[in-house]
Amino acid sequence: MTTTAHSEDPTAHTARTGVWFVGARGSVATTAVAGCAALAAGLHAPDGMVTETQPFAGSGLAPLSSLVFGGHDTVSCPLPKRAEELETGGVLPHGLSSAVRSELAAAEREIRTGGPLPGDTRGDEELIGAFAADLLDFARRQRLDRVVVVNVASTEPAPADPEVLPPSSLYAAAALRAGCPYVNFTPSTGLRAPALQDAVAASGLPHAGRDGKTGQTLLRSVLAPMFVQRALPVRAWSGTNLLGGGDGAALADPAAAAAKNAGKNRVLADTLGALPQGDVHIDDVPALGDWKTAWDHIAFAGFLGSRMTLQTTWQGCDSALAAPLVLDLARLLARAHEVGVSGPLPELGFYFKDPDGGGPAALGEQYEALLAFAGRLREAR
Amino acid sequence: MTTTAHSEDPTAHTARTGVWFVGARGSVATTAVAGCAALAAGLHAPDGMVTETQPFAGSGLAPLSSLVFGGHDTVSCPLPKRAEELETGGVLPHGLSSAVRSELAAAEREIRTGGPLPGDTRGDEELIGAFAADLLDFARRQRLDRVVVVNVASTEPAPADPEVLPPSSLYAAAALRAGCPYVNFTPSTGLRAPALQDAVAASGLPHAGRDGKTGQTLLRSVLAPMFVQRALPVRAWSGTNLLGGGDGAALADPAAAAAKNAGKNRVLADTLGALPQGDVHIDDVPALGDWKTAWDHIAFAGFLGSRMTLQTTWQGCDSALAAPLVLDLARLLARAHEVGVSGPLPELGFYFKDPDGGGPAALGEQYEALLAFAGRLREAR
Amino acid sequence: MTTTAHSEDPTAHTARTGVWFVGARGSVATTAVAGCAALAAGLHAPDGMVTETQPFAGSGLAPLSSLVFGGHDTVSCPLPKRAEELETGGVLPHGLSSAVRSELAAAEREIRTGGPLPGDTRGDEELIGAFAADLLDFARRQRLDRVVVVNVASTEPAPADPEVLPPSSLYAAAALRAGCPYVNFTPSTGLRAPALQDAVAASGLPHAGRDGKTGQTLLRSVLAPMFVQRALPVRAWSGTNLLGGGDGAALADPAAAAAKNAGKNRVLADTLGALPQGDVHIDDVPALGDWKTAWDHIAFAGFLGSRMTLQTTWQGCDSALAAPLVLDLARLLARAHEVGVSGPLPELGFYFKDPDGGGPAALGEQYEALLAFAGRLREAR
Amino acid sequence: MTTTAHSEDPTAHTARTGVWFVGARGSVATTAVAGCAALAAGLHAPDGMVTETQPFAGSGLAPLSSLVFGGHDTVSCPLPKRAEELETGGVLPHGLSSAVRSELAAAEREIRTGGPLPGDTRGDEELIGAFAADLLDFARRQRLDRVVVVNVASTEPAPADPEVLPPSSLYAAAALRAGCPYVNFTPSTGLRAPALQDAVAASGLPHAGRDGKTGQTLLRSVLAPMFVQRALPVRAWSGTNLLGGGDGAALADPAAAAAKNAGKNRVLADTLGALPQGDVHIDDVPALGDWKTAWDHIAFAGFLGSRMTLQTTWQGCDSALAAPLVLDLARLLARAHEVGVSGPLPELGFYFKDPDGGGPAALGEQYEALLAFAGRLREAR
Repeated sequence: MTTTAHSEDPTAHTARTGVWFVGARGSVATTAVAGCAALAAGLHAPDGMVTETQPFAGSGLAPLSSLVFGGHDTVSCPLPKRAEELETGGVLPHGLSSAVRSELAAAEREIRTGGPLPGDTRGDEELIGAFAADLLDFARRQRLDRVVVVNVASTEPAPADPEVLPPSSLYAAAALRAGCPYVNFTPSTGLRAPALQDAVAASGLPHAGRDGKTGQTLLRSVLAPMFVQRALPVRAWSGTNLLGGGDGAALADPAAAAAKNAGKNRVLADTLGALPQGDVHIDDVPALGDWKTAWDHIAFAGFLGSRMTLQTTWQGCDSALAAPLVLDLARLLARAHEVGVSGPLPELGFYFKDPDGGGPAALGEQYEALLAFAGRLREAR
Repeated sequence: MTTTAHSEDPTAHTARTGVWFVGARGSVATTAVAGCAALAAGLHAPDGMVTETQPFAGSGLAPLSSLVFGGHDTVSCPLPKRAEELETGGVLPHGLSSAVRSELAAAEREIRTGGPLPGDTRGDEELIGAFAADLLDFARRQRLDRVVVVNVASTEPAPADPEVLPPSSLYAAAALRAGCPYVNFTPSTGLRAPALQDAVAASGLPHAGRDGKTGQTLLRSVLAPMFVQRALPVRAWSGTNLLGGGDGAALADPAAAAAKNAGKNRVLADTLGALPQGDVHIDDVPALGDWKTAWDHIAFAGFLGSRMTLQTTWQGCDSALAAPLVLDLARLLARAHEVGVSGPLPELGFYFKDPDGGGPAALGEQYEALLAFAGRLREAR
Repeated sequence: MTTTAHSEDPTAHTARTGVWFVGARGSVATTAVAGCAALAAGLHAPDGMVTETQPFAGSGLAPLSSLVFGGHDTVSCPLPKRAEELETGGVLPHGLSSAVRSELAAAEREIRTGGPLPGDTRGDEELIGAFAADLLDFARRQRLDRVVVVNVASTEPAPADPEVLPPSSLYAAAALRAGCPYVNFTPSTGLRAPALQDAVAASGLPHAGRDGKTGQTLLRSVLAPMFVQRALPVRAWSGTNLLGGGDGAALADPAAAAAKNAGKNRVLADTLGALPQGDVHIDDVPALGDWKTAWDHIAFAGFLGSRMTLQTTWQGCDSALAAPLVLDLARLLARAHEVGVSGPLPELGFYFKDPDGGGPAALGEQYEALLAFAGRLREAR
Repeated sequence: MTTTAHSEDPTAHTARTGVWFVGARGSVATTAVAGCAALAAGLHAPDGMVTETQPFAGSGLAPLSSLVFGGHDTVSCPLPKRAEELETGGVLPHGLSSAVRSELAAAEREIRTGGPLPGDTRGDEELIGAFAADLLDFARRQRLDRVVVVNVASTEPAPADPEVLPPSSLYAAAALRAGCPYVNFTPSTGLRAPALQDAVAASGLPHAGRDGKTGQTLLRSVLAPMFVQRALPVRAWSGTNLLGGGDGAALADPAAAAAKNAGKNRVLADTLGALPQGDVHIDDVPALGDWKTAWDHIAFAGFLGSRMTLQTTWQGCDSALAAPLVLDLARLLARAHEVGVSGPLPELGFYFKDPDGGGPAALGEQYEALLAFAGRLREAR
């Protein structure tokens, strides 16, 4: 057994941990697989990975080199090729896709066709069964101690009929059936479907979600508390997001955007006490590729009602923002499962717009809860 | 007897509290006097006043209606006229200067000539004695329980010779001599002069400072922790401030700007562990009057070293940002004095770039410390 | 007869010129009436009035002091009160509404009720007849040489049925019937209704429109040519407008916004050769009042396809941007009528997003055409 | 003989044109050499090259494939390696440095050591003679019809003593001596040295400069005319430039920055009639590499003195902005020389902050002058 210099704890048990991506050939999953390999090989510093910082030392998290990747997807472009595309688009650094080609190929071999596919005649039960079988097969062949299922697929439209299970919930049900901890990094329904609540409760599995907080909402979760603490009433908070890539196209669907915006608004409403004036737009701008620009305009009142404003412009690569958090979450959920933590993990609200289990909306408080959770994992050893 | 922090409580004990401004005819002091009168009369909501929020109820703070204002200045334009100018410049709301004319005139009657004036032949001891006599005379004639001295004068150049007391330190020494709690809302030296340290320690007076955190640095104190918590290394943090008014002119002096920037940099260096690349500029742009625009550009590294940026543009009125905090501080220092708290108050780091007594640099932690202090004041009753 | 110092030509014939606003109690009309009086009285410099610059000297334009205002509106708040509201909102300078109260009252006496009102049973013909009678009555009583009708009413929804005359077209038809030159400063239909084309052609009246170019589109009309001239392909041009006031509410209606955006897009499509990727949003943010913020994000390709961006943030008061242009147009149309110019005036494309008569889309070329038109007016004397 | 401006024309006369870069191993020169090869090979569209647009067809410009590169430099890193570095830094597209390696190597073989080097004991005359010999040798060996010398070296400090020739002027003097047309794309002195004026006049050579207009000043040259045309007085124009790379370091020297800012201010002063309030900062931020961010804040007055602002943020790669213009200029100067045009070329003011020969400051007028010049070149055939 070998651990890398980046994984902080040389005494860590070398449990083999599986990470199963729903949306395994998407930008986030590809970046996570390639990046994990690059960090394990010491090619890059672990920028953006919270679990590689000092407070997580000794928490028993799986070394990055021990993670084994697989997943479901409905598209067929293989991972090594996706990585080349991301390198050309500036998401992955120059030369990385060839440097970690073998790790990408290994993950590619563990990708199975998801569903439902166009014209698919299988019913929900059949699909759930097939997905669960894929998970169990992955764990068995790779001799994994556990597999964390992580949803990083494109955002689904908000479901019109809560009785019908959307695809994200079929995969989530399969995770339950296969006994896998589950993370929903998207605004899609996943485990939140009413029809799954009994199974969730009965499973005793840890789970976390929903909708990763990577950019505009991350900013909002530190700025909104500032206005409250300084007693500066926010009159209006408006935002525009420009993004291309798959996410831009998916969110150009108003129903998908509605799912996303619900999470964004939650942070403001929870922190400010009420949702202020202002809209949020998500525009599909293919020319921007995976690079996102988010502009926020906040109108607030100062002393004696004076009108003041703050504007923010955030320019980042969504996949590069999401991938390290996804790796963090996979490690945290695996360790939680190992030590017997079950149910929703509001302690991971730091990562989400709309946390399973609720909790505070201010990032600072969420960070304190996360550190306390790291301590709990450490003591559980 | 119980009072609430909310100043309209008719049963409040009417301890009369003096607030003595060094720089009493400047924009901040004028806005504070006019605004306090407006709030006491119920003309405006207490936007921007932290001590008027719920957590401060019952902390025994002086009602706004009980504050009595006076001060030193070396310019002669009377307060009611200054208020009219500020109203024309959009700092004070339409009609306010006439609505509170009698309160402005009352404060104007309590303003004394400061110093040293051009050609002044008085030595330090003589000046300190004269200023202290003004303070004692104010307290006696107005039958005040105590007087808090608050420095809101234009920023001094950073002193070339630490042995020579700059004007801000002469006023601070006078506060010590007259037994007054002291607040330094500016980057000037004030009580920090080496020659005053023995007197500060011997005085047993509470004091707080230095350099109010009203805009760009306020933002930095919530954004910098976000980057740290998310493990996103900040590569460069650059900033430009455009402002007119007296502050713009004062800070166009490189030595004064240096004093100011030291405080701004402290927040970044303390939070990020080291000062990142990037400069801070303070430009005098008279056309902007009291309205300030601060632009920050933050270059940070994401996963695998990807280059990302955040830009912020803050547009506010400096006097309107400072005035409510100045009133907060006067009330908090008066109450601290009343209940016997002495020495530097790092619990008020929430208000300052470079807090007396040090403490955490992240706004969230500073806010918690402030709330704990409010609790301490409440229990001291 | 007296001319003011601001009107450049002491020998100008003192024709009395009427300016009839459709939407006479709106922000733009109120600002124009108050501002015209302020300039005529020498209270302010003519900032923003192009016809008060040197190239227009000697073009025979009516002195500002000779303009007589009236108009139609369906709301009842009198002009002096509207002016006070605009002063409180920071649109008009401190003290102006009282300084020009008599001129506001005079204009108020010449405002007639427009239509159709809710529940109005009058047919188109009856309404047009009533409006034309109001115009003729105004001209007769005030002994005016001519009356220019200027539409500054709230934007109508884009008409669903081109055969039905929307209100803006009823007023435009009344202008034709009363022999009045016509300006449409809004995106509404006005004279463009198919049913009016014969009457427009037969009238021999000069007319100009459509949709004043005051902010975001003004910027676009200088930036888009820059990209073309420098051979920098624009990949995407996205924009968000935040505004409150009546315009914000009117444009929150998607049909009205569509009318507005058609003009905005025209500038880009005409200049760039094709409409690039990117959306335009118009958000109603009541907290901003009459102050508008427009953010544009332009993604363009540099050498070897490198990805570059330009962002612009425009913060202005829509009424204050529109009012001087409206006065310019009234004067230019009156003079055109005086010297016998008829039909659409593409030479005034400088003022519009979607000029009557077409013409170049680049501001620089439009300005040259405007100066040539000024020369033509001068020579016509 | 006929050629078109479009370099792929197989019938084009193959006059061989030399392009000699002062600063041949810098980012701009490397990008120009690599990019020219890429365009000649059809690997990329000619984005950013004005001379490849339709109006220049038939003007007799040298095909890109006929350009032969060489130059002087005092650093030793070879061009192919510089190109790899630029590719890693995102300035050159993925894969380009290897695709055009042979062209880079060919240019590298024609680079000679410049001067004066540290400890160099050669006098001005000796250096000029050596540089001119290098030019003549290049032309002879490569059998070139002519060689255009283009200064793209780092900005020199503004000279303290106008009698002393700075390095840029030594190279410029060598160009004169060798009979080469000359372009100064930097703010350095070059041909403007007083001591060179007689030689310039006697040479009969065409020349153009000074200080390429690639970003912030380009924007200013279209925005400033807009404010003038709309009669909106600019109260203050402030700017901050953040850039790393060699240019950032060179311009961190206040004397070099002063040279640069003189050009930037010229555009504003010429267009607005006077230089408005506001400073320009150039900050060295190594973390940004060759990517530059320029923020401008423009405070302007609207109707009745209302305060409005425009902010712009320009994010581009300086080398990628400069390189196509440098190729444009080399071709234009070569053709001018071919047809006997001599002296300063104000018709090329489109490219410069401070044009040789002066001329209009508005980009639109400069573009018209450039098109007229293209026509003159066409007719000269």
